[in-house]
Amino acid sequence: MSSIIQLPASARPADSVPLKYGIIVHPGFQALDVFGPLDALNSLSLCYPLQLFIIAETLEPVSTKPPGSLGNPTSNFAQSIVPTHTFDTVPALDVLIVPGGVGNRIPEVVAGAIKFIADVYPSLKYVLTVCTGSRLVAEAGVLDGRKATTNKAAWARTTAYRPQVNWVPHARWVVDGNIWTASGVSAGIDLIFAFIGEVYGEDVATLMANFMEYERHLDSTWDPYADLYSL
Amino acid sequence: MSSIIQLPASARPADSVPLKYGIIVHPGFQALDVFGPLDALNSLSLCYPLQLFIIAETLEPVSTKPPGSLGNPTSNFAQSIVPTHTFDTVPALDVLIVPGGVGNRIPEVVAGAIKFIADVYPSLKYVLTVCTGSRLVAEAGVLDGRKATTNKAAWARTTAYRPQVNWVPHARWVVDGNIWTASGVSAGIDLIFAFIGEVYGEDVATLMANFMEYERHLDSTWDPYADLYSL
Repeated sequence: MSSIIQLPASARPADSVPLKYGIIVHPGFQALDVFGPLDALNSLSLCYPLQLFIIAETLEPVSTKPPGSLGNPTSNFAQSIVPTHTFDTVPALDVLIVPGGVGNRIPEVVAGAIKFIADVYPSLKYVLTVCTGSRLVAEAGVLDGRKATTNKAAWARTTAYRPQVNWVPHARWVVDGNIWTASGVSAGIDLIFAFIGEVYGEDVATLMANFMEYERHLDSTWDPYADLYSL
Repeated sequence: MSSIIQLPASARPADSVPLKYGIIVHPGFQALDVFGPLDALNSLSLCYPLQLFIIAETLEPVSTKPPGSLGNPTSNFAQSIVPTHTFDTVPALDVLIVPGGVGNRIPEVVAGAIKFIADVYPSLKYVLTVCTGSRLVAEAGVLDGRKATTNKAAWARTTAYRPQVNWVPHARWVVDGNIWTASGVSAGIDLIFAFIGEVYGEDVATLMANFMEYERHLDSTWDPYADLYSL
């Protein structure tokens, strides 16, 4: 273990918690959907023997740049992350994280991700989604009849993909069984700390949040954005 | 301009605002130090013709993995970002962003960055730092006699590098002239929205924060972490 952060005595032992994380990245992903949760897990990995698999169609770097006509043609402002595995090569996972981002409005961009989610879901301990990432899990068919939430500005467009889901409009995040879905973008940070609190211990979540100087929203029903967008 | 976000009428025109951004990345950077501010700027780039230059020693991908003995040898949990330019090839910038991260505790990891900051500072409109990134700007000598802040958990170690700086312990962020310094990690998100509000227009900052469903800290003196770490 690193000397940078020391776990509290109440932390769950490493042999009782999920250790193998995967995250899907697609062209036009939302940066904070990915790096909010991962920053907290990076800190957690200083104290637990965690593994991360960054999963994409190919091993080519994946850009935040909105594909096609979704972006601003006068801007050149994006970041690229390097995948470690493809959908075909990633090993067994405990937790799958599915971010959103405007790129997922293009069906070809996320068809492989949706198929992967459908295939892998039965073997997972948990699925965590941020923003419109929940739509991909919904399209994989594993949210039918379950409660979930998603981005509030994109609510009507997103929820229409799969009306069989019990979409919850007023929620920072929603838990139904082993699927944890967050509202838009920064809500993923509150979701990951709630998840760490539930699974690794509340004192661990507090420690990591303090390390990141992040003031958590602790109430999963806190949601001024549902009101802002008249949901 | 993209159709995803529409600027308010009060937004400053593109010919009156900074457009060319650079960000330094070094091995062992803190992911949220980088992607908190960049996520907000990614959204801003849907409405302004922004350019981003990701700057490192070489063009090899740069990992969040803490270098040397700083990390946890039992974990394999990191993300790599792809630089677009080196310190030698980056063109003229308006704004330079300097993140922190435990990697900067190793002098060789950040020597090139410190020299670059010293060289480029006179040509910049603004410098923004997150977390211990302010220490690199301090070591470059351009914060002497000026107010600045930094990560609160790492306060004593960080401020000792350059006692000539007027380090402000109780602050979410500090502005002195054209240098904006944030406290630890997530404070960079509040800093970037304060900066967008000041420079592009307050309505623009509100629009972008709502798009990211982010509840801003609007008071630059809000800082429970200074108390937590007894500063």
